[in-house]
Amino acid sequence: MPQERVAFILVIATTDVSMIPGTTIAGATPELTMYTPAADAEFLINGKCDVIKGVPITPDGIPSPAIISRASLNLTGIPTFVVNAGAKVRPLAIPFFEVGGEPGKDIRSGALEMNVMERILNNSMRLGEQLSRGFDRVIIGESIPAGTTTAMSTLVALGYNAFGKVSSASPDNPMELKEKIVREALSKVSDEEDKIARLSDPMIISASGIAQGFQGKIVLAGGTQMTAVAALTKKLAPMKLKDMEIWTTKWIVSDKSSDILGLASQIGVKVEYSPLDFSKSKFEGLRVYEKGYVKEGVGAGGLSLFAIKMGFTTENILKEVEKVYEEAKNEKI
Amino acid sequence: MPQERVAFILVIATTDVSMIPGTTIAGATPELTMYTPAADAEFLINGKCDVIKGVPITPDGIPSPAIISRASLNLTGIPTFVVNAGAKVRPLAIPFFEVGGEPGKDIRSGALEMNVMERILNNSMRLGEQLSRGFDRVIIGESIPAGTTTAMSTLVALGYNAFGKVSSASPDNPMELKEKIVREALSKVSDEEDKIARLSDPMIISASGIAQGFQGKIVLAGGTQMTAVAALTKKLAPMKLKDMEIWTTKWIVSDKSSDILGLASQIGVKVEYSPLDFSKSKFEGLRVYEKGYVKEGVGAGGLSLFAIKMGFTTENILKEVEKVYEEAKNEKI
Repeated sequence: MPQERVAFILVIATTDVSMIPGTTIAGATPELTMYTPAADAEFLINGKCDVIKGVPITPDGIPSPAIISRASLNLTGIPTFVVNAGAKVRPLAIPFFEVGGEPGKDIRSGALEMNVMERILNNSMRLGEQLSRGFDRVIIGESIPAGTTTAMSTLVALGYNAFGKVSSASPDNPMELKEKIVREALSKVSDEEDKIARLSDPMIISASGIAQGFQGKIVLAGGTQMTAVAALTKKLAPMKLKDMEIWTTKWIVSDKSSDILGLASQIGVKVEYSPLDFSKSKFEGLRVYEKGYVKEGVGAGGLSLFAIKMGFTTENILKEVEKVYEEAKNEKI
Repeated sequence: MPQERVAFILVIATTDVSMIPGTTIAGATPELTMYTPAADAEFLINGKCDVIKGVPITPDGIPSPAIISRASLNLTGIPTFVVNAGAKVRPLAIPFFEVGGEPGKDIRSGALEMNVMERILNNSMRLGEQLSRGFDRVIIGESIPAGTTTAMSTLVALGYNAFGKVSSASPDNPMELKEKIVREALSKVSDEEDKIARLSDPMIISASGIAQGFQGKIVLAGGTQMTAVAALTKKLAPMKLKDMEIWTTKWIVSDKSSDILGLASQIGVKVEYSPLDFSKSKFEGLRVYEKGYVKEGVGAGGLSLFAIKMGFTTENILKEVEKVYEEAKNEKI
């Protein structure tokens, strides 16, 4: 049997929800969250960033999960294509797909224009169609700060019970703040307008579009945000759900402040997780992953699980992650 | 042996040289040449255009060679990825790669900024690297009106004898006009500046960058413009030349107003051609290809030759081209 042909697709976007203080730690300041998706994408492809110095970090200096993704891609050797679904800062140091998107608004006060939402969806479907001509499986990852809040609002808009169920890159999940934002956004929705354009984000729309257009196996590589992608896909193309799985990290599945398995079971999508363990890492910035920091992002869970399925051990992966992290730290100096 | 994995990459760009009356017929008017690359790309992916109505045509109403490319892609089923190396009008109805490019200037009076040229080159190399993780061979095509004039200036800048040797989409090749433009542009080059940034175009730079980054077999699918891509690649990455071939059409090779074989032999790159014959087509717009109209573009020669190598006959291809053309004509109404 010929080897399975697999590609990794990283969908990046921003939403102005990440400018609300306290929603996210995916960036050292709220303003810097606008740079995080482009920085993640550049780091993934080039091993360094041009839009910011060094590697994307939290306010505490913990590195982006992009280091896990890059390490896993180094091991597996599959191609990576970045899709800009609507990022305020674009990754000019790498090639990336445009799908005609725009950054997401603060869901309490704004919405994507309908024609922009449709363009993102249609062009992403076309991209999915072309990818199926070359690949048997796509692994779709994301980078969008505050994306768990827009995942929550998307899930609620689609009729799911998502309050208190989405995760966070912080060990202290700001659940009440997220719920407050989502309830305020929901209160502003009129029956006439499209709830998805108002309550979702460009990443969810584009990732679902790619999945809808792709003929083959689809891995949604991410945490609770990917349940929103699965839910939107179920609404728009229900037959696709059978080809779709969510691959995430142990850190997401074992997180007590969220409930990916409960969300996935409401939708009817299977979840697998990568058993990475950083407790014995020589780097403090990696050991704190075991304390609930970061947890997931940039396809880290799905890409490392794919590496494991290809035969690499968790030790192989940790060793490569440490190498990537060390190179990034040196790059910074 | 597993089947060869092949992708088609269409590199689009514009140059203000196409605004000089008489240089090109790739567009019904000089102004419309700015729309042709985006229209070709949209037609290739979607079978119809959004940036213009119908299908891109010459002033006489002869259809773009994109119909041959789309027909060949329908038969072979390989994936297509569009790269915007710098087109004034962007193809918003399809997904496309950005490489940070900008449209080319009129070479008599302007030049690409050095940092833009380097960005196009570097990002295109990175794209080539990622593509080699998924594919064994890339077929690289182009759409850039007046691109034979900038091919001539690029070849001359690199030390080749190219005057009177580049082809045209018209049966009346405006050789004297092209040579006049190139000589004027050459006279303005100072020693300090990079000749490529002044005398080339974004398509040539991007296509060469993709080829330089790609590890595998490289087909340059086009006419005399592709000798400029081969020449630039020979200058920047001479080892790549052994993996590279130009695949074009019978109409280019038999054109008496140009000399692709002479150019290719100066550079040392092999040329093959597709033996398509439209003389028995039921459409006048296709029969005139045998009279020297259009000849090549959008990868038509390379893609149809690839289809033939896969086992399709020239009759199979003509039949599919007629089907695509008929659908496009109906779309227009």
